Parts: sequence; structure tokens; C-alpha cells
Amino acid sequence: MEKIYLDNAATTPVAREVLDAMMPYFSEKYGNASSIHSFGTEAKEALEDAREKIANKLNANPYEIVFTSGGTESNNLALKGAALSNRKKGNHIITTKIEHGSVLKPCKWLEKLGFDVSYLDVDEYGLVDPENFENSIRDETIMVSVIHGNNEIGTIQDIDEIGKIAREKEIYFHIDACQSFTKTGINVETQNLDMVTINSHKIYGPKGIGALYIREGVKVDPLIHGGGHERKLRAGTENIPGIVGFAKAAEITTPGDVEKMRELRDYLIKRIINEIPNSNLIGHPQKRLCNNANFTFKFIEGESMLMLLDQAGICVSTGSACSSHALKPSHVLLATGIPPEDAHGSLRLSPGKYNTLEEMDYTVVNLKKIVGRLRELSPFK
Amino acid sequence: MEKIYLDNAATTPVAREVLDAMMPYFSEKYGNASSIHSFGTEAKEALEDAREKIANKLNANPYEIVFTSGGTESNNLALKGAALSNRKKGNHIITTKIEHGSVLKPCKWLEKLGFDVSYLDVDEYGLVDPENFENSIRDETIMVSVIHGNNEIGTIQDIDEIGKIAREKEIYFHIDACQSFTKTGINVETQNLDMVTINSHKIYGPKGIGALYIREGVKVDPLIHGGGHERKLRAGTENIPGIVGFAKAAEITTPGDVEKMRELRDYLIKRIINEIPNSNLIGHPQKRLCNNANFTFKFIEGESMLMLLDQAGICVSTGSACSSHALKPSHVLLATGIPPEDAHGSLRLSPGKYNTLEEMDYTVVNLKKIVGRLRELSPFK
Repeated sequence: MEKIYLDNAATTPVAREVLDAMMPYFSEKYGNASSIHSFGTEAKEALEDAREKIANKLNANPYEIVFTSGGTESNNLALKGAALSNRKKGNHIITTKIEHGSVLKPCKWLEKLGFDVSYLDVDEYGLVDPENFENSIRDETIMVSVIHGNNEIGTIQDIDEIGKIAREKEIYFHIDACQSFTKTGINVETQNLDMVTINSHKIYGPKGIGALYIREGVKVDPLIHGGGHERKLRAGTENIPGIVGFAKAAEITTPGDVEKMRELRDYLIKRIINEIPNSNLIGHPQKRLCNNANFTFKFIEGESMLMLLDQAGICVSTGSACSSHALKPSHVLLATGIPPEDAHGSLRLSPGKYNTLEEMDYTVVNLKKIVGRLRELSPFK
Repeated sequence: MEKIYLDNAATTPVAREVLDAMMPYFSEKYGNASSIHSFGTEAKEALEDAREKIANKLNANPYEIVFTSGGTESNNLALKGAALSNRKKGNHIITTKIEHGSVLKPCKWLEKLGFDVSYLDVDEYGLVDPENFENSIRDETIMVSVIHGNNEIGTIQDIDEIGKIAREKEIYFHIDACQSFTKTGINVETQNLDMVTINSHKIYGPKGIGALYIREGVKVDPLIHGGGHERKLRAGTENIPGIVGFAKAAEITTPGDVEKMRELRDYLIKRIINEIPNSNLIGHPQKRLCNNANFTFKFIEGESMLMLLDQAGICVSTGSACSSHALKPSHVLLATGIPPEDAHGSLRLSPGKYNTLEEMDYTVVNLKKIVGRLRELSPFK
């Protein structure tokens, strides 16, 4: 049976062009970028070329791109690094109730060290109110960290507005753009961004590589100490094949890919809402990632749907992959006001650029059957 | 011109078998190991299979292997993680003067937080005196961290002896085994090891992946917080192709490879010492990594030798790659008592399993010429 992968928000296959670009750097151009002989120089050139490509995608200076092992490390570096480095300025951090664990857990860690963290509420669509953000700013606020495109519900925040306020109040603005990078425009200058987390394996690049944009002048303590790599902000021999692949993945994204994903998403949403009773779209109907369709189906469990869909060859997720083994209802769904019993019945379908309309049809037909079958068995219906 | 790569201590090419093992995990078996559908399960199985292979190489339990982004991160996790988690027990850490930056810098960072670090002296061969170690232990000592095979001078420490003392005194014993892993036996049980840093790109595996062995029961705080990956000790979507490649690289090492490297090393050492006047072997003559030959050549600069060798197609290094852009003489060489002026004239040649005896001949012939030429120009001769 041919499988249908609709979990592109969890991870994506490496694109053929990306793998082709990486290949020479495994066994031929394998130098350590810190070495000063010809193998090292070759690696260093590939590193700096990749840095420039990534910077271009954000309207940043290449110098401001720090490569890391992925989105989680970048978020840790941004949160802990900026907090620890600016402790004398203040101990207050603002974030939201719908962040990824790699922001929330560092915040909890910082709280233990004496930092005070405000977690902003969101509305029913998962949107932060910029006015609410502004009111939460204090004299001792040093940073605000907001997830740009939410990994579970897909809602895209109004970072233009938040950025304006942050800049005016002179606090650092960090966004977690793991899901939104290349899917919606990010411009560090016009959007007043000070730190931006991006990663590779959500955009058809390899796993194990990401970056943090750090505006020149923004003070950040390193998380991983050692050699003087990456402006002394991130030690460790650079993962050149990964970095080259990441840059290639960013480079080859096109508006056409985004448009295609949006069409598949909208087709899924329209058919599911119309054809499956008691199904509700979660997240904002318009301000939404091009690859995110997330629903609650009343009276049934997301995990049961997921397993039956998997048996039919369709791969989707409930909540985020990172917390998919947790039995608690998603903190993101709860923050939007969805009752816990409904949150358990959520399903995320994230189409990617390699999916087809025929696959969406097959998915809807099977999902209808499965929802019907599970509801027949449900004691809650 | 065919190049001769003699910098295998800086990094190695990815072995063909390793790349073959990795390939399916980029674009076919690309699931997120946290996903609970079939793509995720497949990734999870590859992850656990790799964990078992790595564990076998250390005589460890698979559960005790935590994958990281490389040796630098593993050293940071071991040092900072164990220090912060055991602060109530004491604030004293013991290490040596010849550690890699990824141990020394975390130690400096911990000193700022109130930890007290003792840096043990080494003898002229770079060996730590176990008695000296024992005498440095205090009531508040929580950990000793020692580089197993030194990255610059190749000296292999007597970890059996250090391990016995550490266990007896009930302090954690961490070794940085980035250079020694697969080149000399490591057995966490018989050698009383509590934490072991290993990495992939020094053993013909890919860059960007490593691991920390953490004995069950040893308390370590995570460095990177987020999802519950890796026993909640290291968050972030697992780099499956990297992990599979790392395990394959570890699996395919043979005593024959080690023997071959040792022969090439000994051939280099013998010819250079015999044929180039005023050349001295640095590090221990016997207790030495199979791939390390390090010399000082009086009256000349390592960097000049390196560049002229590079022009002849031969890639070597001075000191370690990680500090090769630093102009200061190596802290490791200075710790062995070599005068700063001689330390500047050091050269590390690290043969690998793909090198040949003919390449060693070509290298010695060219090195002789280059040393002669530079000495003619030298004002110090």
C-alpha cells in the first residue's frame, strides 16, 4: 500500500535537490571548517555560502546567522542566552501560553533562577492581543518570545504589531519561526525582529540542523561552550553537510510550493467541515500556516483516529509530534478555550509539497468512515 | 594533484558503508521518531537499534546512551549538567590542564557560578599522576573530568587507575573520549566510568552527531530543554540519519583499522625523528592514540610548515583544529613543559584508515625539504 504522509508539520522528507547538494560534503569535501589547509578552506567556503543564503531569506546580515543543531537548541539559546546575558537589565520575560516546549521549558528553568515570566493569553483562534502584550511590559522586561506560526493549530501571530511595540519599549523580540520559515515572509528589518529561530527538517532539509538569527548588538550568552565557532556563540565542529542542505532547502522554496500547500489545506478543510458532522476547525481561518489543517471531532479520541488512519496508510498527528506520547490534552488547545474532552478528539493534517489532491480525496473518504465507526462505538455520542 | 589528508584527528571522511546506511533515512524513512504512525515507528526503531549498537561498544546499557549534536555538546552536558544537578553535594570539580576547550570553557562558566575547579598538572608526556588526582579530592568534590586520548599530543591517560580512585571516593568520573572511541577499548563497567563523551565525525561517521553515556542513577540536568526526547535529558527531534550513520561507523571499526593506523603512525615517527634534525616527538611514546604523530621542529613556525605542506597537497594541522586560528601557543603543549618558542613549531600528523605507506613516504620527503627551506630563512637557527 502506498502511504500518504500528512504530517509535514512534524518533519518532511529531504528534497532530492537538497540531498544532491549535501552529498559531496560527506566523503569528498569533508574538511573541518576550522582547519587552515585546503580541505578546511573548502568547508569554510561552503559554510559561509550557506550562511549568506539563509541570511538572504530573512533580510539579515550573514554575520547574524548562528548555526545550531535545530529549532529546539535555537529556542534554548535565544531564551536562556538573552536572559542570562541581560540579567542586570531586568528579570522579566514575556511569552505566550501556546509556545512550543522548547520555549516553555527554558522559561520554567529561568523561573528557577529567579526570572519572572508572563504567559500571555490567546483568543479562541490562538491570537495574542498586542494591546495585552503592551500592558504586560514592565520596567524590568528584557524580552518577548512569541511563536510565529503555531505548530499545532497553525495560527500566525501579528508579529508586525508586536515588533513595533517591542522596539518602541526597547525590549528584545524573539520569534520561534520553525513552522513559518519559508511559508510566510519574515523580514528582520521591517518586522523589528531581534532573534529568529529557524530549522531545516520542516522545510525539506535534513534533521539535526537549525539556526538562530541574532541581530548585531543583541547580547546573548552561549549555551554550548568550547572552540570559537559561530562568533563564539555556539561551539562545536560545524555540520557542513547539514548546513549546506539547510541552505539549499531554504533556497529552493517557491511561492508556488506555498500556494500548492494552501490549496491542499483548503480543500481538506472544506471537505471535512462540510462532510463530517460535528467537526470544527481549530486555529484562525485566514491567519494560518499554509500546511496546517487541525480539527476537533466531537465524541471520539484523536489517538484512535490516528491509529485507524495509519492502518489505512494515512499518517497524521494529534497535537504536536514532540508531545504525541503525552496523555495530557494539548496546552495549546486548552489555551484557545477548547474543553479538555474536545481537545482529546483533535487531529492535525499537514499537507506538504509532495502531496496530491487525489491523496486528499482518499484521506477524506477514509476519515469519514473512521469517524463514523468510532462514533458508533463511543459512549459519549 | 592527488591530496594527502593527514588530519584525521580533526575530522574524517564519511565511510562508504556509513553513507549507504544513512541514505534511506533522508528521503524515504524520514519520519519523526516521536510520531506514533508508521513513519514514526520506523524512525524510532532505527533510533533504538543505533542506541544499542553504540551501547555495545562501551559495554553499556542502551538506556544509558543520550544522543547529542556532537562531542562539544556532550562535554557541556556532562560538565554543566552534573555540576548543576549535584550542587547540593558540593561545588568542587577536578579536571586537567590539557582538556579540550569544550571542557575547559564549561569549567570557566561554572567557576562564575561559584564552582571551584582544580586543573591537574601533567608530566612531560602529558600524563596525569593518579596520586596527584587522589590528593586533590576534597569532601566537596563531585566530579573528575579527564580527556582520555588527547586531541593534540595523543597521550592516553591511565583511566583504569583514575576510575578506581573516583569510585572509591564516590565522585563521578567523566572522560572525553572523542579521540579514543573505537581506537582503544572503553568499558564503562571495568573502568568505573560514569559519563563518556563520544562523537561520530572522528570515526568516519557524519558530523553533527555524538552521544553522552550517562550511567543509570547519575544525576545530570539537561542543557537543552523542550520535548521529552532522550530520557528528558536532551530535547529536539532526533537526527535519525546522523544517528544511524554514527552507529554504523562505530559498528564497522575493526582491530585491523587500528593496527593499520598504528603502523602508519610508527612509520612516520621513525622516519621523521631519524631523518629530520632537531625534531622531537611530543606526547607519550607508547601510551598514545594510534592515529597521532605530533612533533616540534626547532627554529621554525608550525603555521609556515602547514601552509607549504598544503601547497604540496599534504593536509596536516598545528595544535587542534578547533583552535587553529588562535595565535597563542597551545595550552596542551605548554602544560607538558615545552617552551612557548618550541610550541609554535609543532605539527600534528594524524593518519587514517584510508592512508597508504606511499603517502607517508611522500609526506616525509616533502616535510624534510620544507623544514630545511624554512630553517634556511629562520633568524633563530
